[in-house]
Amino acid sequence: MNKPDNKTKLGKDWALQYPQDYLDVLAITIPEVLQKSGVSADDIIGMGIDFTACTVMPTLKDGTPLCFLDEYKSNPHAYVKLWKHHAAQREADELNKIAAERGEDFLNLYGGKISSEWLAPKVWQILNEAPEIYDKMDRFIEAGDWIVWQLTGNEARSSCMAGYKALWNKKRGYHSKKFFKALDPRLENLSDDKLSQNILPIGRKAGEINNFAAELTGLKAGTAVSVTVIDAHAAVPTVGITEPGKMLMIMGTSTCHIMLGNDERMVPGMCGVVADGVIEGYFGYEAGQSCVGDHFDWFVKNCVPADYINNAKELGANIHKYLRDKAAALKVGESGLLALDWWNGNRSVLVDADLTGMIVGMTLQTKPEQIYRALIEATAFGTKIIIDTFNENGVPINELYAAGGIAEKDEFMMQIYSDVTNMEIRIAGSPQAPAYGSAMFGAVAAGKENGGFDTIKEAAERLCRVKDIVYKPIPENVEIYRKLYDEYKILSDYFGKDENNVMKKLKAISLGAEENK
Amino acid sequence: MNKPDNKTKLGKDWALQYPQDYLDVLAITIPEVLQKSGVSADDIIGMGIDFTACTVMPTLKDGTPLCFLDEYKSNPHAYVKLWKHHAAQREADELNKIAAERGEDFLNLYGGKISSEWLAPKVWQILNEAPEIYDKMDRFIEAGDWIVWQLTGNEARSSCMAGYKALWNKKRGYHSKKFFKALDPRLENLSDDKLSQNILPIGRKAGEINNFAAELTGLKAGTAVSVTVIDAHAAVPTVGITEPGKMLMIMGTSTCHIMLGNDERMVPGMCGVVADGVIEGYFGYEAGQSCVGDHFDWFVKNCVPADYINNAKELGANIHKYLRDKAAALKVGESGLLALDWWNGNRSVLVDADLTGMIVGMTLQTKPEQIYRALIEATAFGTKIIIDTFNENGVPINELYAAGGIAEKDEFMMQIYSDVTNMEIRIAGSPQAPAYGSAMFGAVAAGKENGGFDTIKEAAERLCRVKDIVYKPIPENVEIYRKLYDEYKILSDYFGKDENNVMKKLKAISLGAEENK
Repeated sequence: MNKPDNKTKLGKDWALQYPQDYLDVLAITIPEVLQKSGVSADDIIGMGIDFTACTVMPTLKDGTPLCFLDEYKSNPHAYVKLWKHHAAQREADELNKIAAERGEDFLNLYGGKISSEWLAPKVWQILNEAPEIYDKMDRFIEAGDWIVWQLTGNEARSSCMAGYKALWNKKRGYHSKKFFKALDPRLENLSDDKLSQNILPIGRKAGEINNFAAELTGLKAGTAVSVTVIDAHAAVPTVGITEPGKMLMIMGTSTCHIMLGNDERMVPGMCGVVADGVIEGYFGYEAGQSCVGDHFDWFVKNCVPADYINNAKELGANIHKYLRDKAAALKVGESGLLALDWWNGNRSVLVDADLTGMIVGMTLQTKPEQIYRALIEATAFGTKIIIDTFNENGVPINELYAAGGIAEKDEFMMQIYSDVTNMEIRIAGSPQAPAYGSAMFGAVAAGKENGGFDTIKEAAERLCRVKDIVYKPIPENVEIYRKLYDEYKILSDYFGKDENNVMKKLKAISLGAEENK
Repeated sequence: MNKPDNKTKLGKDWALQYPQDYLDVLAITIPEVLQKSGVSADDIIGMGIDFTACTVMPTLKDGTPLCFLDEYKSNPHAYVKLWKHHAAQREADELNKIAAERGEDFLNLYGGKISSEWLAPKVWQILNEAPEIYDKMDRFIEAGDWIVWQLTGNEARSSCMAGYKALWNKKRGYHSKKFFKALDPRLENLSDDKLSQNILPIGRKAGEINNFAAELTGLKAGTAVSVTVIDAHAAVPTVGITEPGKMLMIMGTSTCHIMLGNDERMVPGMCGVVADGVIEGYFGYEAGQSCVGDHFDWFVKNCVPADYINNAKELGANIHKYLRDKAAALKVGESGLLALDWWNGNRSVLVDADLTGMIVGMTLQTKPEQIYRALIEATAFGTKIIIDTFNENGVPINELYAAGGIAEKDEFMMQIYSDVTNMEIRIAGSPQAPAYGSAMFGAVAAGKENGGFDTIKEAAERLCRVKDIVYKPIPENVEIYRKLYDEYKILSDYFGKDENNVMKKLKAISLGAEENK
């Protein structure tokens, strides 16, 4: 088994992963699922993969990740850059500047700004900081596409990932060579040399489980594999969303917001609009919040005092639950706290990974559960800004759905979201909505003649589910949250729209201090 | 022994104490000091009292605190209101409004605004919320003055406390009756009816230990007792400050800044300027920061994770020391954090108890020691604003001295203060500078013919001391802190000067939520 080199210290904002982990998951999880479920591999007609994106890596022509090669083991740029790798902000800024100067119209399709999380800034960072890795790579590929490649032997890439993260367009393909050349002459042939042109619509069959994958997973060789889908997007059909007017929030470490539209609108700060990007026949819109579950984990790891941990232990309660119970006992607005949920930058609607967190209102009476609640509320205010922005820009949202770990488990938080947005919220029926959606796409890849479906719409009609519980806004909470949201919006504009760019100045000072270390 | 009623739940921003505690301190501490030091009561020529101010209580004519009476035991307004009791903000706001409308010139002597911590708002709050207590009280008296009364039988009040906290003026006395009447007709005769007119300059003898006090403390009846001094102010002569140009910071739970001037200048946000208020012959200027040591205590109690506590325990280190060591290993500016040190409001230079804390710059990589350091730095920036404001308004500060627990113990913090202010800092020689200064005033009360001194200047010449250590600014730190201070100032103006009064709005919402509870 391959082993990573863990000795290199990573810079600020870096986030890597090791691709062998992905193979290990296939080798361990699938056989275990087969065994525990008692389902025979003979009865499995198709398989779908969903994955975080843009989570991307350099490989050789045969798919070998560069980090598997001894000579590149110690080079961080040879590894998978996770979606939350934010160290290519300089490249993203430069790309946005050049694109704006050139009047590139693709900017409008991605909210006016390209995120440092996406493919082009990440590959450009490699070129700038490790040109030998850039030269050596034959492919720069999404981890989801790479897995499909490992399973089928086919490098069949996902239109969903390419569309939302590599700015690939169904009509025009990738960025023009001229644009890439304007960024850096060495990037001119990036799309021809390093990116695949074999891009398939989601739901389409990428290939079949090959012998290597059959041995690895216990699935039968020949089983259909669909092209990969971004994790959040895979969840959309599972709640029955196959038409405009409905937003699905997939709430985990971060939150992805997905909705459909009849036409291509330019919504400020959206992550992207992609034709057939989610459901064929509609424009798929995506927005996002970079820091949701991660936020609360950070808080629990860094800010919860020992007596709270001990009390939770004595009660036999999980610390998150203990904090939630204490936070739930507070009245709306009681804490006097207000936070900006930008601990991991802001994806929508500001598209700026260099923004940071802010909290105001602390007194000597402030308690940990009050801060915890303020962080939850901040993420809800962030969601409301997104909903408002779509509503104001011709993509109306009348119904709200939620999926993912938080939607599944956290009634307290979902009620806050309902109160803040003043909307009812319905919850995905499957506790693993993206996986459930992937399976639906796998059934579509298999096709009706093999016991599956011909379209994802058909699959959704038969298989979609929501829970019985519906979160409904509580009028007196709605009223106070409206006041707090007004304040959130003022602060969001102040810190987020260059009225006071202190967050960026502090980050610059911080980077300078790190370099002097 | 008297016992307080602890069953009544106090409102937000309340801070009370029980006066029996003060008597207990005299009864326990003084005999113990005598015994441990081996000094005979025969050799003690005088005694001085320093005390926090405005820490104030209602009493009967004979000095009995109203909270000692059974009928008022359950009434919080019958107790001592500590200096940090901030629940009279409404009254302070109203008083400031009316004073400004009337063009009362005393406002200019107190930085343009009266603090809710001072005597008039506190007594007015009692009148508004518990008129029966107001009616019943014969005296409304500083706790320091009350102790002198208990020790000597004389209600001899301190010019220092009356000057700084009750707005008493050597030339004009208390506020005019007209002004009090304008606040509330029932207050018209406040100064005649409830405040003493027997106000003596500090250093003057208030009386002698009486029989009751001799029995209580083990001191000899007839020992001279000086009038009380505010704790911070008592420290000034101990470092040898008897002339203008030098600032003493007394750093504890809060920080008091004291300096002398040749003339009466109007410095924005100062707490007061009082003729002969600190050293006879000069104008004594006071400024203050409401939240210094309290800040770090809050942080340690509410925000330090269990593994830090455990690690500190394993190392046998105090948690403050453990955090300081981790924080000291950081480069200046490395954390990317910036805070406003207003957890307990802002005394100077904004004079606004309704301001609250703010911190900006958090990421998912932010560690507790970074927040801890940001809080320390915020208090240093708060000090720099005060120094700059005095310099800009004709009260130059060329030398910086520090006393109190923090100055004594915390080299890390003092170095930050030196770097932020770009000034050398000298430290009081006595670890208990206010107590040492009180003893000096006690020696002055005794007078030269009894082995003491005739003036505090003479006492200072003989007895002042500073430590060998001098904190000197480190140029590369100074440079980065200058940049951070510029950002602090922008945020301070934004949140503190009504550009965005979100802190007050949040507080109002919070009070509303509490009332609905």
